[in-house]
Amino acid sequence: MLPLLGRIDHVGIACRDLDTAVRMYQATFGLQVASVEVNEEQGVREAMLQVGAGPAGVGAPGVGYVQLLEPLAPDTPVGRFLDRRGEGIHHVGYGVADIGQALAEIGATGIRLLDERPRHGSMGASIAFLHPGDLGGVLTELVQAAGHPR
Amino acid sequence: MLPLLGRIDHVGIACRDLDTAVRMYQATFGLQVASVEVNEEQGVREAMLQVGAGPAGVGAPGVGYVQLLEPLAPDTPVGRFLDRRGEGIHHVGYGVADIGQALAEIGATGIRLLDERPRHGSMGASIAFLHPGDLGGVLTELVQAAGHPR
Repeated sequence: MLPLLGRIDHVGIACRDLDTAVRMYQATFGLQVASVEVNEEQGVREAMLQVGAGPAGVGAPGVGYVQLLEPLAPDTPVGRFLDRRGEGIHHVGYGVADIGQALAEIGATGIRLLDERPRHGSMGASIAFLHPGDLGGVLTELVQAAGHPR
Repeated sequence: MLPLLGRIDHVGIACRDLDTAVRMYQATFGLQVASVEVNEEQGVREAMLQVGAGPAGVGAPGVGYVQLLEPLAPDTPVGRFLDRRGEGIHHVGYGVADIGQALAEIGATGIRLLDERPRHGSMGASIAFLHPGDLGGVLTELVQAAGHPR
């Protein structure tokens, strides 16, 4: 079987206050903000901070992101995570070339898909989550970048 | 300030049984094992599974790792993490060009260093951990690859 995962796309981090978290990552590590978006479907306001200096940014080899996630309300997945576990790493996202094919192949192994079809993710990407209960407690996201594979 | 972090080097994942976890990542995602090591200092038996097809493997641009960590004993950092939170994402590691310089610069911002001096990490790397209490609950590791920066 060929590797389905092309790269570590991002690490998703739950925070109570997005602006505070962004300032901390800028001041400590010198990271730059690539985008700030509200994703109503996921119930978050989020910032993507680029790690690594790729040529074109999104989807380029050697570029990953710290994704900071502030819940839009307590009764959202990230809001409930903060209540239960506090601030910290929420999930990991891997880049795939073809998210539809990846979901089909992974689903065929018996892993439960939280999203049967791709949803809208950061910076125009198509994303889907896999069930952490089938993956050693790790909430795992697949990411197909907009425009070209990342 | 220049970005200190060159790339997402790895995501560290705590598991109860390393061989089971390795088989799951192989079967689900087709990832290949790059190394299996015991690190007595860190109290773990661990496997590095490569994500992305870099030319030379370790430290190459576009290559990251899933690091699976099984504790050598209950009374170790990863053993206590499993007791407290169960299996799941334990930490994130970022590649730096010069770990001594990175520790000095980050320490100067007021972030507490769990390791004042680098220790031995996977695949010959030099590593150091930063205090999660100063970084939004995220246990953060710096990694300088053996031989060349990664």
